[in-house]
Amino acid sequence: MKAVLARGAPGVPVIDLFADAPAGDPMSGAYLLAAYAAWWPAGTIFLCVIDPGVGSDRAAVVAQADGRWFVGPDNGLFELIARRATAVRSWEITWRPAALSASFHGRDLFAPVAAMLARGEPSPGTERPLSRWLDWPDELPRIVYIDHYGNAITGLRGSSLSPAARLTTGGRELLRARMFADAPEGEPFWYENSNGLAEIAVNRGRADVVLSIGVGSVIEPS
Amino acid sequence: MKAVLARGAPGVPVIDLFADAPAGDPMSGAYLLAAYAAWWPAGTIFLCVIDPGVGSDRAAVVAQADGRWFVGPDNGLFELIARRATAVRSWEITWRPAALSASFHGRDLFAPVAAMLARGEPSPGTERPLSRWLDWPDELPRIVYIDHYGNAITGLRGSSLSPAARLTTGGRELLRARMFADAPEGEPFWYENSNGLAEIAVNRGRADVVLSIGVGSVIEPS
Amino acid sequence: MKAVLARGAPGVPVIDLFADAPAGDPMSGAYLLAAYAAWWPAGTIFLCVIDPGVGSDRAAVVAQADGRWFVGPDNGLFELIARRATAVRSWEITWRPAALSASFHGRDLFAPVAAMLARGEPSPGTERPLSRWLDWPDELPRIVYIDHYGNAITGLRGSSLSPAARLTTGGRELLRARMFADAPEGEPFWYENSNGLAEIAVNRGRADVVLSIGVGSVIEPS
Repeated sequence: MKAVLARGAPGVPVIDLFADAPAGDPMSGAYLLAAYAAWWPAGTIFLCVIDPGVGSDRAAVVAQADGRWFVGPDNGLFELIARRATAVRSWEITWRPAALSASFHGRDLFAPVAAMLARGEPSPGTERPLSRWLDWPDELPRIVYIDHYGNAITGLRGSSLSPAARLTTGGRELLRARMFADAPEGEPFWYENSNGLAEIAVNRGRADVVLSIGVGSVIEPS
Repeated sequence: MKAVLARGAPGVPVIDLFADAPAGDPMSGAYLLAAYAAWWPAGTIFLCVIDPGVGSDRAAVVAQADGRWFVGPDNGLFELIARRATAVRSWEITWRPAALSASFHGRDLFAPVAAMLARGEPSPGTERPLSRWLDWPDELPRIVYIDHYGNAITGLRGSSLSPAARLTTGGRELLRARMFADAPEGEPFWYENSNGLAEIAVNRGRADVVLSIGVGSVIEPS
Repeated sequence: MKAVLARGAPGVPVIDLFADAPAGDPMSGAYLLAAYAAWWPAGTIFLCVIDPGVGSDRAAVVAQADGRWFVGPDNGLFELIARRATAVRSWEITWRPAALSASFHGRDLFAPVAAMLARGEPSPGTERPLSRWLDWPDELPRIVYIDHYGNAITGLRGSSLSPAARLTTGGRELLRARMFADAPEGEPFWYENSNGLAEIAVNRGRADVVLSIGVGSVIEPS
């Protein structure tokens, strides 16, 4: 994923949240994005590109959810954003640039549209509902992201799990800790991370290596 | 390569295009830079550092090509930029900072010169032609860059190849596709990427791994 | 480490100096930070996060050293900054945000405090000395960082070593060179890098691979 965000012109900051996030996997990205987006104020514009269908006929959309704006492919990436929001509006992007490459809509289509929104212009398209992926669960019991340190982020919100909940993955049943410093060195555990997701970690170690897990690995809560 | 660019003061955005591009290989970088630079408007300032000769007697230069500015070593990195431009002027940088390290001219020499240009100041040097590498081909049949996803970018422009052209590399003869979504999963192919270069890719896979190729691997067009 | 810096509002540039620096190792980071910080002007604000004790009871501090500002954990990361500065003031951060996660003080605590300083507000805490790590040496004969190219940066300042000094590591005794271009290809050597630290490198090769060294490897000067 490239989840880049812009906030208001002029002097628009651009933040590349997940340069290394799950390539080609909008479902994993959807759970990650919904958790991270919640930390940004209304008016933030998210330019989100996990787009394995670029060049096919998937639509391009703008979504406004609880005041935050999202620009990207209509491929499920915004499913959890839409499901958890109180108020959602959405548009299919009908505007096209003079030159549209087959493979890089992030540059050619989504970025200019995000810039239009940042300048306060209306969504350049037709209002219509997002495509929906209603069979996706509210909480996804899978690893959706491995971070730089080897921590394994799940699609489960910590708030959906009891304090005594255990998560089983990679053949190990893991207890909840409050933070890294609370767990013995080298021992895997899970905790509610700073974005509210259940995250599997090893104090001073790499959870992905210790547990041989990666994006897509299944988590069994108990 | 660090190909950083700045556009006008104040509020100069700096974009690090290729933090991971071919280290120590100005020739590969030259084909990549010429393809990517074409997308930026006149007035853009490119600060380009692939500089294996830093600390030796290679000169430091400013080049202006079709209105775009380039600052960096006179080591071939701007050869294709110069060759393809309609109008080129160039200067040897004679300005020196108070403290010039032997190993980091990007920080000590090139960045301040790029900032001078961004402020609208003249090139701080003497106008003279760039050194030229006229034996380099117009189209380079080699891999010049492996991107984050394992796609292998060549030094061949797609426009130089027929729609039916095949590219052979890593023991495989590859057909042209329009985009990832047009190729079967796991199957290598080539396509003209969003910057106009022939790129070898695998739908939902890593071309560098599938074909065992890397920067410098030879491509045979047919 | 995330050593991010901000300089004055509005239009605060943010530079992520070491996204890949020694995780969980404030001691290595302290020698690296002291060398790199010296290049920035007075008034620069460094937001520094190497924080294995996040969520424990380590304090959060602001330090002002020779006019530069540092915000981060009181865990030794600023030890060399403080030791080498002429004038140091420091504060324990007593301000707390409305929501403080257990695991991400970089976002929740340190970044807002850095922003307060960038706006010219006073340090939101109580003036008191930093904790000190007086048993740490002035020059650390260890590898503290491996960069993108495999160069191995030590905690020894080049100015502390004679021109004829040799550094032994990975079973090899290395001579000093002025720059990469002065050493034969493939041959390891050491030189004083652009930040003043002794760095072990291989001309057109990776020192970490050639010498099988990494962060923490011991250096014996002679």
